[in-house]
Amino acid sequence: MNLIVPAKGGLRMIEAIGNREAQAMLRRNLIGHLGCNVDGEPYVLPINYIYDGDCVFIHSLPGRKINALRDDPRCCLQVEEIRDEYNWRSVIAFGRYEEITNAEERERILGALYKRFPHLTPVESGMTKGLPEIIVFRLRVEQITGVSEDWK
Amino acid sequence: MNLIVPAKGGLRMIEAIGNREAQAMLRRNLIGHLGCNVDGEPYVLPINYIYDGDCVFIHSLPGRKINALRDDPRCCLQVEEIRDEYNWRSVIAFGRYEEITNAEERERILGALYKRFPHLTPVESGMTKGLPEIIVFRLRVEQITGVSEDWK
Repeated sequence: MNLIVPAKGGLRMIEAIGNREAQAMLRRNLIGHLGCNVDGEPYVLPINYIYDGDCVFIHSLPGRKINALRDDPRCCLQVEEIRDEYNWRSVIAFGRYEEITNAEERERILGALYKRFPHLTPVESGMTKGLPEIIVFRLRVEQITGVSEDWK
Repeated sequence: MNLIVPAKGGLRMIEAIGNREAQAMLRRNLIGHLGCNVDGEPYVLPINYIYDGDCVFIHSLPGRKINALRDDPRCCLQVEEIRDEYNWRSVIAFGRYEEITNAEERERILGALYKRFPHLTPVESGMTKGLPEIIVFRLRVEQITGVSEDWK
């Protein structure tokens, strides 16, 4: 815990978030930031995700980022809730990129992603032919850390 | 450019953002996500920053993340503007962590940060004594990339 005397005169409290609350934050949010290394450089991108208590599931078009994750599977998902400058919390789930290639599992997860994010659903028509196949991957969560700031 | 046939029937356009617009995004936003490696693992945290056209300026309490950046200075700042699921843009500025130790320069940058983010200003009183000294650093931007999604 970290105490800083703030300009507005209260007491700034920076505290670790417990595992239970961190899990709940991962479950209830829809957008996170994926961190990885692309060509040896730190890289961050906003993504939609699902968390089932063990793994974070994401889908993506193939490309440079996916190639980078295949080469260096270390990655993290950061999720935040910001009420205002004085009250916010942020969690990070660390894990490894695991591409889902089993057809049945892939369909199941894609179905869950499309259900939660209808705007990502591709049109079921001949027009999708010729488009690159969507990659589905998981980040099997090995560790979660989190921090909150509250001004009392 | 990437065209995907969307569920809602329009045309999804994913395009690179030009340097001028990417620079403008970095200038007008207040919150970004810093990506780096901490203990060899990708790490992401939300931060307040200033961008002056050459460098991103950030301040932080000392600790594990600062130690990690001293060890491995590769980092990036990602900034996004999300109107809705269908219309968003994201830029990344890549660079190296450079700690600012010159007292005059440090004061000047801290002043600019406190002016833009009054909630971060410490109380000018004896109560701040004994608190760890704030670290000021810059990310000298070497490269900027950006992408936008728009549904027509």
